[in-house]
Amino acid sequence: MSIRTKERIRVRYGETDQMGHAYYGNYLLWFEQARGAWCRDRGFTYKSLEELGYKLPVVEVWSKYRGEVKYDDLIEVEIWAEEIRRAAIQFRYEITNLTTGQKTTEGYTWHVLIGSESKALSIPPEVREWMDRNPDEFETLR
Amino acid sequence: MSIRTKERIRVRYGETDQMGHAYYGNYLLWFEQARGAWCRDRGFTYKSLEELGYKLPVVEVWSKYRGEVKYDDLIEVEIWAEEIRRAAIQFRYEITNLTTGQKTTEGYTWHVLIGSESKALSIPPEVREWMDRNPDEFETLR
Amino acid sequence: MSIRTKERIRVRYGETDQMGHAYYGNYLLWFEQARGAWCRDRGFTYKSLEELGYKLPVVEVWSKYRGEVKYDDLIEVEIWAEEIRRAAIQFRYEITNLTTGQKTTEGYTWHVLIGSESKALSIPPEVREWMDRNPDEFETLR
Amino acid sequence: MSIRTKERIRVRYGETDQMGHAYYGNYLLWFEQARGAWCRDRGFTYKSLEELGYKLPVVEVWSKYRGEVKYDDLIEVEIWAEEIRRAAIQFRYEITNLTTGQKTTEGYTWHVLIGSESKALSIPPEVREWMDRNPDEFETLR
Repeated sequence: MSIRTKERIRVRYGETDQMGHAYYGNYLLWFEQARGAWCRDRGFTYKSLEELGYKLPVVEVWSKYRGEVKYDDLIEVEIWAEEIRRAAIQFRYEITNLTTGQKTTEGYTWHVLIGSESKALSIPPEVREWMDRNPDEFETLR
Repeated sequence: MSIRTKERIRVRYGETDQMGHAYYGNYLLWFEQARGAWCRDRGFTYKSLEELGYKLPVVEVWSKYRGEVKYDDLIEVEIWAEEIRRAAIQFRYEITNLTTGQKTTEGYTWHVLIGSESKALSIPPEVREWMDRNPDEFETLR
Repeated sequence: MSIRTKERIRVRYGETDQMGHAYYGNYLLWFEQARGAWCRDRGFTYKSLEELGYKLPVVEVWSKYRGEVKYDDLIEVEIWAEEIRRAAIQFRYEITNLTTGQKTTEGYTWHVLIGSESKALSIPPEVREWMDRNPDEFETLR
Repeated sequence: MSIRTKERIRVRYGETDQMGHAYYGNYLLWFEQARGAWCRDRGFTYKSLEELGYKLPVVEVWSKYRGEVKYDDLIEVEIWAEEIRRAAIQFRYEITNLTTGQKTTEGYTWHVLIGSESKALSIPPEVREWMDRNPDEFETLR
């Protein structure tokens, strides 16, 4: 289980719906932004992973929505790698609404590593090394 | 378990991402569109439910992504109410990519019924009657 | 100026915002869906254009928002090619909200044709022939 | 013409499309985020404006897309109020892709001020005072 990375996001107007809250599908964009931050925190980017010919598509997602998240709220997504298997990785997420102080959402995503031929691959050692990094030992990429 | 409603959707360009497939968050918009169709198939609209002062926010979502869904593909979302509890309802979804013939995605959403004061309510008989309707006995609203 | 193609779209919940109307950015997805329908109406698909190595990225957009467009409203986007230049094409759009009967939105997009090397190209005769087609003489692709 | 406010945004994966660039509709979300920043830079929030019973819906948008904007690129949106009329305000935008160094996009949006009854209002003095503020004299809200 990896060290948690925290990513702050301000909720956009276009991310709300007529119920006055953030639309449930938009949390998945925030999860994705947090995954990008998780990589940067370990000194690499998801983009660089793709440039090496790897991709990490989402194969499963789960999310439980609790408290309210509204326009202009500042939320903090905590993300960590819960489990790393031979060819798959599970990220977990906890969202705190900093504007209200409430824990509001939790979730997970499962990803498989695929190569240039869109086939599942065993995670190669160089990529595994990135995933196992201690963020305290790497400079966060900006 | 309710009778299935089927909703066809053509994948938009803006729903893809640079991986060349539909972005995982956009499936949740398709699930929502299918919920609207499920209501219409039973002779009411989700909109009319809100006009009566009720809302059915999503409190949990799960989805498993299998085959490929690409731009311009025609998908069919099958939706049914798997379980209706005192104050909650679970919809289940199965997506078939009609362009490729593949079953591609399954998922569920849990919803709670809330009233005008944003508190969970027992589903009132009039709403329960709507949910229990046999679509064959009602004209689909267009 | 080409014959108009009409495309009907039901407004999704996730396309609204907390003001209770469709978010202004989502109209651009509807414009895009209408462009796809414009191609299909002429017996080809935008997808097939990309498969031939061509792309038609948007280089300019303008839109004026008038009446209201709300959740579950059925809108009709009318689209036509206003102008076709050597390497560019302008589509124009008019949206009518069929639920309210109001003309609500007009707009245009300019596109340039680019090839596999991302450089602007003169529209080749085969593509120009597609664009100039009379939809009455072609079966609409489904 | 107001002093410019600058807002930095990291492009999300879900904001790209299969062409490999940011989808044209998503720029409108970035414009909106920049408007929020413009307010914060002047010591108020757009949210607080709505809490006072005012809204500033977009009635017109224009944008010209030039250079490339890709996943993970860091962009900077410069925004300023180009013109403030009795009941309307025009914001202008210039986007620089900091990752490539290119100026990539310009645009404008026109907004009208409406009150609780959804009618256009003359901008009241208190709101006008907010809009005319010199950001150097106010602490940016975080």
